Amino acid sequence: MKQLEERIARDGRVIGTEILKVDSFLNHQMDIALLDEIGKELYRLFKDRGITKVITIEASGIAIAVSAARCFNVPAVFAKKARSLNIGKDVYKARVHSFTYDNDYDITMSQNYLSASDTVLIVDDFLANGAALNGMISICEQAGAKIGGIGICIEKGFQPGGDEIRKKGYPLESLAIIESMDENGIVFRKQ
Amino acid sequence: MKQLEERIARDGRVIGTEILKVDSFLNHQMDIALLDEIGKELYRLFKDRGITKVITIEASGIAIAVSAARCFNVPAVFAKKARSLNIGKDVYKARVHSFTYDNDYDITMSQNYLSASDTVLIVDDFLANGAALNGMISICEQAGAKIGGIGICIEKGFQPGGDEIRKKGYPLESLAIIESMDENGIVFRKQ
Repeated sequence: MKQLEERIARDGRVIGTEILKVDSFLNHQMDIALLDEIGKELYRLFKDRGITKVITIEASGIAIAVSAARCFNVPAVFAKKARSLNIGKDVYKARVHSFTYDNDYDITMSQNYLSASDTVLIVDDFLANGAALNGMISICEQAGAKIGGIGICIEKGFQPGGDEIRKKGYPLESLAIIESMDENGIVFRKQ
Repeated sequence: MKQLEERIARDGRVIGTEILKVDSFLNHQMDIALLDEIGKELYRLFKDRGITKVITIEASGIAIAVSAARCFNVPAVFAKKARSLNIGKDVYKARVHSFTYDNDYDITMSQNYLSASDTVLIVDDFLANGAALNGMISICEQAGAKIGGIGICIEKGFQPGGDEIRKKGYPLESLAIIESMDENGIVFRKQ
């Protein structure tokens, strides 16, 4: 997605060779016009898949899920990062490893809002090692829901998550894939 | 807001006399058409206030902030619930008490995305004791930003937060105010 790549190149901040901050427009401050275009592009890519629900994980996926769900005219649901209270027994649950914090956490989703009759579009802001995405795939499997598509805004192509998930046969599309980056700039994978 | 009150009455689940679950349409699964109407209503209420930014707290405020920000044609920013890493020094920070978990946590917002030149609309899904809202007010004060409006989806009118914040003179509008509730139903405050 040309517009997203250009925005990353212009406003993203590269720290070292692995960290990309896009918090001026995507996951802290959010540019709504860009979110709308991301929603439209995800709709263009997956509109023929019979999507009935868009899911993501709190927090930074929520704006993207809402923007996509508007185009598909379906509800969005976000998985919660589990805390100790107010989590009923009627939830799907998956363990996710955080490479940032080097710990594990659970994500949960109420069983009321995902079932075997759903065809899901999974969305998120970043894909690197695939830990969060594999958690969402697990939740879909627990529900018996079909995965109609996976739409990622920014894939770190130099980390293994994206290629591993493609090898498993999931319909993954990343709107921008970074091959490499450093203080001199960002190289995007040609798509 | 009639449409929101009707939806709460139809799909909200009352537990005891203090807990209202709206996770089928507002803060876990999200009905996008309703979010759009909430955005429009917030715009109608605050369109003359010169709003330059919509802010909220992760996670359940984000969809509401994005929906409102679209109508105002301004960016949205969400305060993060602080964890130990990746929090720079250049943040505004406020301590918030959680009545649900009976503990304190910090919320943070990058100083890059809120300044004295901003006029802010603060939004959130719920207002009860006002702890989270007072945290966001504190962040605006630290930034020197003007609070142009506070827009809440559901205020628990039987808890003190809303009235305390109105007494301080803040321009608070709640789209639905619950006077009381129990297993027999919900009584909304006439507005």
